[in-house]
Amino acid sequence: MSRFLRKRYQDFEAYTPGEQPQDREYIKLNTNESPYPPAPGVVKALKETDMERLRLYPDPTGHRLKTKIAKLYGVNEENVFLSNGSDEILNFAFLAFTDDDETLLFPDITYSFYKVIAALHGINYREVPLADDMTIDVDAFCAEPANVVIPNPNAPTGLALGLDDIAKIAKANTDRIVLVDEAYVDFGAETSVPLIKEFDNVLVSQTFSKSRSFAGGRLGFAIGNASVIRDLEMIQYSTNPYNVNALSLILAEAAIDENGYYAANCKKIEATREQTEKALSALGATVLPSKANFIFAKVPGFAGEDIYRELKQRGILVRHWNQPRIADWVRITIGTPEQMDTLVATLKEIVEK
Amino acid sequence: MSRFLRKRYQDFEAYTPGEQPQDREYIKLNTNESPYPPAPGVVKALKETDMERLRLYPDPTGHRLKTKIAKLYGVNEENVFLSNGSDEILNFAFLAFTDDDETLLFPDITYSFYKVIAALHGINYREVPLADDMTIDVDAFCAEPANVVIPNPNAPTGLALGLDDIAKIAKANTDRIVLVDEAYVDFGAETSVPLIKEFDNVLVSQTFSKSRSFAGGRLGFAIGNASVIRDLEMIQYSTNPYNVNALSLILAEAAIDENGYYAANCKKIEATREQTEKALSALGATVLPSKANFIFAKVPGFAGEDIYRELKQRGILVRHWNQPRIADWVRITIGTPEQMDTLVATLKEIVEK
Repeated sequence: MSRFLRKRYQDFEAYTPGEQPQDREYIKLNTNESPYPPAPGVVKALKETDMERLRLYPDPTGHRLKTKIAKLYGVNEENVFLSNGSDEILNFAFLAFTDDDETLLFPDITYSFYKVIAALHGINYREVPLADDMTIDVDAFCAEPANVVIPNPNAPTGLALGLDDIAKIAKANTDRIVLVDEAYVDFGAETSVPLIKEFDNVLVSQTFSKSRSFAGGRLGFAIGNASVIRDLEMIQYSTNPYNVNALSLILAEAAIDENGYYAANCKKIEATREQTEKALSALGATVLPSKANFIFAKVPGFAGEDIYRELKQRGILVRHWNQPRIADWVRITIGTPEQMDTLVATLKEIVEK
Repeated sequence: MSRFLRKRYQDFEAYTPGEQPQDREYIKLNTNESPYPPAPGVVKALKETDMERLRLYPDPTGHRLKTKIAKLYGVNEENVFLSNGSDEILNFAFLAFTDDDETLLFPDITYSFYKVIAALHGINYREVPLADDMTIDVDAFCAEPANVVIPNPNAPTGLALGLDDIAKIAKANTDRIVLVDEAYVDFGAETSVPLIKEFDNVLVSQTFSKSRSFAGGRLGFAIGNASVIRDLEMIQYSTNPYNVNALSLILAEAAIDENGYYAANCKKIEATREQTEKALSALGATVLPSKANFIFAKVPGFAGEDIYRELKQRGILVRHWNQPRIADWVRITIGTPEQMDTLVATLKEIVEK
C-alpha cells in the first residue's frame, strides 16, 4: 500500500485468484479450465488472421460477434453485451445497478469475487446463507426487494437451481436487477436466457473461459433487456471503451461457429464428472451433485487444506478454503478421464495411508 | 438507460470513441493509430503460439512481460504495472488515489476520457485552462496540493512539456499522485520514467497502441514507485484480475524484443509530421508544433467541423470537437507519406474551392 492510496482502501483485501505455480508441472484441477484445446476452427482463424489488423483499434461495439451470439441464443444483437472476461460484467453491473439506498444480495458461500467488487465500490451488500444442504435459499432472496446475484450453478458447490426458482426470484425483485452468473451453465444446468423475454430485470452473464476453452482469450458476454445492456455499455465507454481485444473478437466468432465441438466436450466432461463422483463416493467421500465442470467433495477425517496439501505434494492442484462452513471441502476441476483416474488413485493412496 | 440504472448515472454522458465507420474505405487519420504493421517478430510469435495455451488463464502477474519492460526502461519488475490498454490505468489510478476531500486536476483541453472517468467515480475534479498559446499552464498545477494528470504530449494539441516542468509539478504536489499520461511520448517528447527514482508520487502511463502498432492488442503499462504499483494491482485484482489476454502478453514480449523496428517507425512518423506541417503551413494553415503522432491545425475561414466534413466526403477521416476554444481546429493523425500527400492535396482542393 502506498501513502497515496485512498483512505477507504487502506485495509482493503483484494481477490486472490487460484494459484498458477510456475515451479513444476501439475495436473491442474484448481481453476476450472477446460482440459480440451480450442476448436480446430479457432486455431485456423488465428493462423489466418491478417496481423495488420492489430495496429487498428478493435470494433468497440463488437457487432459481428454480438450478431453470432444473438443468433445462437435466440435473442437480438441489442440484447448482447461483450466484455474482457465475465468478471468485467460483474464489475460493470455492480457499478451500474445498486443505488446508495439499495442492497445487493448474494450467497455467503459463492464466488468470493462478488464481495470484493461490492466492497471496492462501496456497495451496500448482504451475504445470504446457503441452506443446510448447501443449496441456495430461494425464499431468502425473495424476502424484500433487492438487487441479486445468483450464480447458477453456484461455485464452489456446483449445485444448480431450475428456471422456476430463478423466475420466482425475478418476480419478487421486479424493480431490481437479478444477475444470473452462468459461468458454469454449459455443463448440465439450464440457462435463464429465455427468461429475459418475460423479465426485463434478468441479466444473464456467461463466459468463454470454461466451456469454450478460452480462459486465455478473455471473452465474457451478458444477455438481457436492451436498456440494461445499454447501461452496461455506458459503463464500458466510461472506463474501458475498447475492452475486447481484436484477436479475441475474431477467435470468439470462430468459436461460436464451432459450437458443436464445444457442446461435445461439455458432454464428455459431464460423463467424466459422473464417473469421478462414483469413484470418490466409493472411497467414502461426500460429493455434492454437481452441474458444473468441477465437484465439491469432502473426505471423512481430512480437512480441505490437508487434502489440498497432500495432493499438491503429489503433483495435483485442487482448491480449498479456510472458511467455517466449507473448511472440510475441496473443489476439484474435472479434467480428462486420465487425469481424473490419477486423481482418484492418488486420493485413495492418501486416504488409505 | 434502463429503469434500474443508479440515480447518479441518469444524466451521465459516456465517452465517445473516434468513429470507426464500416460503410466504405477511408484514409483513417482520426484515431492516432500507427500506419505501420506490427514487427515481423510479433507476426512470427503469433503464428508460433501454441493455441493450447488459450484454454488456460493468462498469468495475472504478467511476470515475463514486466521483466522485459523493466529492462527496457531501466527499472525493476516491481515498478511495472500491466493493463488492458492504458485507459484501464487511468481508470484504476482515478479509483485508487483521489480521496473524497481531495481534488483531481487536468487540463481543460485534453483527452476527454479523463472527465468521464472522474465523473463516473464521483471524483472531485477541476479542469485547468490551457494558456493562450495552448500549452499546459504549469504554475496552475502547482498552486495547491492536488492529484494531477499531465498528458505529455497533450492531446489534441500535440504540445509537450520538458522534464523540468514535470519535476516542478511533482515537487509542488509531493503528497499527491502526478500521473503523466505518455500515450504519445515516443514521437519526440521526453519520458518522465527517470523521475520515478526521485519522486515516489510520479506515475507514468504508456501504451502499445500508438508507437507499437498494437491498438487491437490492448496493452498498456505504468511505471512508478513499487508501492504505487501495488495499489494499482489491488484495484486490478478487485475488478478484473486477468485483465491482460494471454496472446497480448506473448505478442507484447515479442514487440519489446523488436524495439528497434518500432523506434525506426517513430522516426519515420516524425519526419512525415515535419513535412506535413510545412505543407499545411504553405496552404495558410496554423499548425501547433507537435511531439505526437498527430498534428493540431486550423485553416482560416473554416470551422473544424467544415474541414472534417469536407475531408470525409473525399474519403479522409480526421477528428474535430464542437468545443469553444478548439472549434476551429482539426486533429490529423500522421499516416504514411503517401497518405499525407493525399491529405495535403485534398485540403488544397477544399481551401481553393
